[in-house]
Amino acid sequence: MSDKVYAISKVVGTSKKSIEDAIENAISTASKSIKHLDWFEVKETRGFIDNDKVAYYQVSLELGFRYEK
Amino acid sequence: MSDKVYAISKVVGTSKKSIEDAIENAISTASKSIKHLDWFEVKETRGFIDNDKVAYYQVSLELGFRYEK
Amino acid sequence: MSDKVYAISKVVGTSKKSIEDAIENAISTASKSIKHLDWFEVKETRGFIDNDKVAYYQVSLELGFRYEK
Amino acid sequence: MSDKVYAISKVVGTSKKSIEDAIENAISTASKSIKHLDWFEVKETRGFIDNDKVAYYQVSLELGFRYEK
Amino acid sequence: MSDKVYAISKVVGTSKKSIEDAIENAISTASKSIKHLDWFEVKETRGFIDNDKVAYYQVSLELGFRYEK
Amino acid sequence: MSDKVYAISKVVGTSKKSIEDAIENAISTASKSIKHLDWFEVKETRGFIDNDKVAYYQVSLELGFRYEK
Amino acid sequence: MSDKVYAISKVVGTSKKSIEDAIENAISTASKSIKHLDWFEVKETRGFIDNDKVAYYQVSLELGFRYEK
Amino acid sequence: MSDKVYAISKVVGTSKKSIEDAIENAISTASKSIKHLDWFEVKETRGFIDNDKVAYYQVSLELGFRYEK
Amino acid sequence: MSDKVYAISKVVGTSKKSIEDAIENAISTASKSIKHLDWFEVKETRGFIDNDKVAYYQVSLELGFRYEK
Amino acid sequence: MSDKVYAISKVVGTSKKSIEDAIENAISTASKSIKHLDWFEVKETRGFIDNDKVAYYQVSLELGFRYEK
Amino acid sequence: MSDKVYAISKVVGTSKKSIEDAIENAISTASKSIKHLDWFEVKETRGFIDNDKVAYYQVSLELGFRYEK
Amino acid sequence: MSDKVYAISKVVGTSKKSIEDAIENAISTASKSIKHLDWFEVKETRGFIDNDKVAYYQVSLELGFRYEK
Repeated sequence: MSDKVYAISKVVGTSKKSIEDAIENAISTASKSIKHLDWFEVKETRGFIDNDKVAYYQVSLELGFRYEK
Repeated sequence: MSDKVYAISKVVGTSKKSIEDAIENAISTASKSIKHLDWFEVKETRGFIDNDKVAYYQVSLELGFRYEK
Repeated sequence: MSDKVYAISKVVGTSKKSIEDAIENAISTASKSIKHLDWFEVKETRGFIDNDKVAYYQVSLELGFRYEK
Repeated sequence: MSDKVYAISKVVGTSKKSIEDAIENAISTASKSIKHLDWFEVKETRGFIDNDKVAYYQVSLELGFRYEK
Repeated sequence: MSDKVYAISKVVGTSKKSIEDAIENAISTASKSIKHLDWFEVKETRGFIDNDKVAYYQVSLELGFRYEK
Repeated sequence: MSDKVYAISKVVGTSKKSIEDAIENAISTASKSIKHLDWFEVKETRGFIDNDKVAYYQVSLELGFRYEK
Repeated sequence: MSDKVYAISKVVGTSKKSIEDAIENAISTASKSIKHLDWFEVKETRGFIDNDKVAYYQVSLELGFRYEK
Repeated sequence: MSDKVYAISKVVGTSKKSIEDAIENAISTASKSIKHLDWFEVKETRGFIDNDKVAYYQVSLELGFRYEK
Repeated sequence: MSDKVYAISKVVGTSKKSIEDAIENAISTASKSIKHLDWFEVKETRGFIDNDKVAYYQVSLELGFRYEK
Repeated sequence: MSDKVYAISKVVGTSKKSIEDAIENAISTASKSIKHLDWFEVKETRGFIDNDKVAYYQVSLELGFRYEK
Repeated sequence: MSDKVYAISKVVGTSKKSIEDAIENAISTASKSIKHLDWFEVKETRGFIDNDKVAYYQVSLELGFRYEK
Repeated sequence: MSDKVYAISKVVGTSKKSIEDAIENAISTASKSIKHLDWFEVKETRGFIDNDKVAYYQVSLELGFRYEK
């Protein structure tokens, strides 16, 4: 598998439900413009609070994908 | 929205159930003494282990809120 | 000056004008509830963008002050 | 409880389901060879993507346990 | 506002005048190819020195913007 | 012990004698206004120099305590 | 040279031979889609092991290039 | 001394007395199961508080030792 | 490949020749006591100097391997 | 320009006026004893507060300069 | 006190006795060649082990001092 | 070997050939003005790109040496 080259994009997914759902939303939206998504790494987990409850999670990810030749 | 000032408090929420539940517990308890909670950022995720299972999650958060004038 | 104890509070100042003005706003607002402010340290510099210009700077600071006895 | 000594091992748990499940898998497998597991700390949260969905989460943990004498 | 997805691009703005001007230059140039710029975060502040004076500031920023669907 | 919530305060203790004494001074002074102090974590160790000797140590700590309900 | 704006892309180069070769592979592949590559910075050096030898190096880089106007 | 290989173990020593004593306790206990201990590096200094005094220090260390062949 | 668990060991390889050779030495020695070595990550690159030349490189690595069941 | 060697010095500039002015003061003073100053990188931005206003900014910089042969 | 410029030097003090003694040794030796030493900050605490005891502590410090004009 | 004091200087070596060669160049040039060089630690690895190839590597190092008395 060597000598391949990958690119890394940073995205932020949001979700009202859970951290995992925010990750899936980020990947699903990014996949519309990026092919060959291969891995992710969570960089920050934040969120907004409304009425003393989590309004939505914001999870920033680095997404790795094979460079198109 | 500019020229507002926010304060940031650090709290640790715990939960037997999940990381998200520990975040909600932290916000819910903090909201009893802090008004205008606006956002959070997860700083550390830890937990205690009992009998080779997660006994509870401990999630430390920074909580942002508008400074009371 | 030894054996004194200091506390550190984290605040976020905002300004439409400049980073320095956001710092001054944070200190000025915090000084209404905290006495003996002594030093600050910039931890993050962010901002919001509106119409492809900086709408306002957000500067998060740690503020040190002498503990009231 | 003082004067005890603890050791820390780093492990990576994986799960198709959730971050919490990856943590439980790591602890459960580690407990087969390490006694007295006491706490964990999440160090990194990553994962692999297959077909534009999370294929599995990879959560790396530090596991603390009492040193056997 | 939840379930939106954002992308983050890293750029370096330069200016002979000030840190704030370098930030504005970065945003202004990036806005020619990126729509919906929403926030920035300063990651590094550097500069070049010429004749024992600052020749220009180099400010590297992360720029957040809404993912185009 | 789960579902409890803790708050974290940052303080700086000083001492002419030792790092440990600066930590004790910080805890002792903080305990006058904070109940239920539970743990600390050293974040920075600094000091001032006078006449080529340590004039006093400055140790900044995060102090964890149970949130009062 | 002031008032120019640069963008930064993150890529991962791989090589069976050496760290330097992985860097060259990343730059060479990226140059097919990015003009005016100007500098790089190594962010992480990893690799995969096969049969108790390095199978290939993975070097993640930030690549700086002049923004196209 | 070249071409030797070392391993690094992470341990946490505790002591009621001092940071140095917690380090010595960690090394002394680890030496019962690890030969050829060579160096240490302090990674974190924490502690528990009881009755507004330090109950005990917890110092986490990386311990380096020569790999047994 | 999910639901597998990996362990991570930290080792330091040394070499008179090169950084890559220090990495290979670390892996080769570790493989005598650890099976299923899978990946590595370089954490620090240091070295000793003798007579104004590099006497040997010291590269500290985290080594990942599948947990033996 | 290759095979040149640079040295890096760390200095702290102060100013009552602005962050940029503190940087210029640091460079101007350092240039009296260091030739060939080439670049700087801001490492920390702090300041002292007097009477609830910024008394002066303290900006710590790394200064790069060509090694004199 | 504003508009002064400080320089920062990094030194490593060692001691068989304690961390504080290693700091004093570093300052005392540095003061032979540097005037106006003003503050220090501990950056790393390490040590060498001999015969399963601490042989000596190595404390690396940044030392701040007023720039000589 | 205890109670010795070391100083640390930061330098940047460059080379067209390799990372190791940049390290050797830094040490060789520094040795003209610093005696008793003892160890180094790589802090950053960067480089400039020309014509889609590495023009030269820039490796910044901390160099440790015994303080001259």
